Amino acid sequence: MDVFLLPALLGETDLSGGVAVVIDVLRATTTITHAIAHGADCVIPLLSVDETKEQGAKNPSALLGGERGGQKIDGFDLGNSPAEYPASVVGGKKILFTTTNGTKAMQACRAASEIYIAAFVNLTAVCNQLADHPHITVVCAGTEGEITREDVLLAGAIVDQLATDAAEPLQLNDQAQIAADAWLEAKHDLTTVSLADRLKQSRGGRNVLRLGQENDIEIAATLDKFTVVPKLDTQHWEIRDSRNLAP
Amino acid sequence: MDVFLLPALLGETDLSGGVAVVIDVLRATTTITHAIAHGADCVIPLLSVDETKEQGAKNPSALLGGERGGQKIDGFDLGNSPAEYPASVVGGKKILFTTTNGTKAMQACRAASEIYIAAFVNLTAVCNQLADHPHITVVCAGTEGEITREDVLLAGAIVDQLATDAAEPLQLNDQAQIAADAWLEAKHDLTTVSLADRLKQSRGGRNVLRLGQENDIEIAATLDKFTVVPKLDTQHWEIRDSRNLAP
Repeated sequence: MDVFLLPALLGETDLSGGVAVVIDVLRATTTITHAIAHGADCVIPLLSVDETKEQGAKNPSALLGGERGGQKIDGFDLGNSPAEYPASVVGGKKILFTTTNGTKAMQACRAASEIYIAAFVNLTAVCNQLADHPHITVVCAGTEGEITREDVLLAGAIVDQLATDAAEPLQLNDQAQIAADAWLEAKHDLTTVSLADRLKQSRGGRNVLRLGQENDIEIAATLDKFTVVPKLDTQHWEIRDSRNLAP
Repeated sequence: MDVFLLPALLGETDLSGGVAVVIDVLRATTTITHAIAHGADCVIPLLSVDETKEQGAKNPSALLGGERGGQKIDGFDLGNSPAEYPASVVGGKKILFTTTNGTKAMQACRAASEIYIAAFVNLTAVCNQLADHPHITVVCAGTEGEITREDVLLAGAIVDQLATDAAEPLQLNDQAQIAADAWLEAKHDLTTVSLADRLKQSRGGRNVLRLGQENDIEIAATLDKFTVVPKLDTQHWEIRDSRNLAP
């Protein structure tokens, strides 16, 4: 099991045939998990605002969501806050979604045979989905090319949970060990410093606070709120509830 | 205070006017610290084997040291093992030194006004040297472009010690926080898993074990063996005992 603290650190790593997990805790993968858990038909992750608008013009019933600089994009229906994606808004809808870092991380994982979307809100469900896969690669999105601690903490939580459940010791790359260290160090005293407070100290957290979206951090730090695992169907390039996709 | 887990992660970071610390625990910075502590006149860090041999031809009294693929280079006097650098061999000598990762990390820090060489063997001395500097950047060398845990652990130990000694909370980038997490997690149970054993599990450690140089890891894991802080004089591009250099 390998962790990469940024997509750029993948280098020439060959993901083909393996399982990839994409993490962008604040906020893309948390928001996508909310959308799918709340009954969205699918989320289409797109790199550019123009591409998202073009696809929106062809799909009048689709919702446009995402951010630039953390803010909702002009002309879009929704921003990048998980609170904007309740069932009453997203149920049955196709969502055309563009964010700065999360979508790039998904693109970097394109060669994998399965790509899952992970957040603290579906941690255990993701780990159950991953159990027994022989070759797992976890990719942290980071923020504008920089490593962010909130993503690393979740990567470490996944390593920790899979290592605890595994029959044999996992083979971990150094980044996986470092991520696990970071998570274990946080776990030791979650009673004195909550996960939400830790996320507020991270680079991504400070960004979200600056946007006045503190509540999004509280939401993102809610462990196992959902049992859904969004899966990116690489053939059709759309994210759906993994239970609704052929294996 | 910023930590970068690899030189490549520095990106466009401007180091000018600041203090940089270079870490390559297994084994370049550990070996350089041994050489300087044992009375070498200076260590010249060079990028290529050819350049090292050329300079050696002009300096017949100099010793040639370093490695490629972890092994001593043909025609060189010394490899990259700290045990090869006792006072009886290196006392008063100029050492022309080339290693794969450490020298590149030093080059990446060129713009800094002061560059120090750190290892576990001189941890406290380095921290004392750094105390009260307003702008410190710690750069981990890694191994062949990959993050290695042994370097991250030392970076975290430096963050931990400076944070403990500081009058006010340090401003840390996320990589510094992650490094501190990794170190604190290791520190919690150094009695059950020694630092040497942790280093043996790391990417760099596994490389050194493969070379049959386990003893080098035990040496590298000896905390505060020396009080010397090697300093890279960027003008003359040579590493000397910081006490023998003008501030």
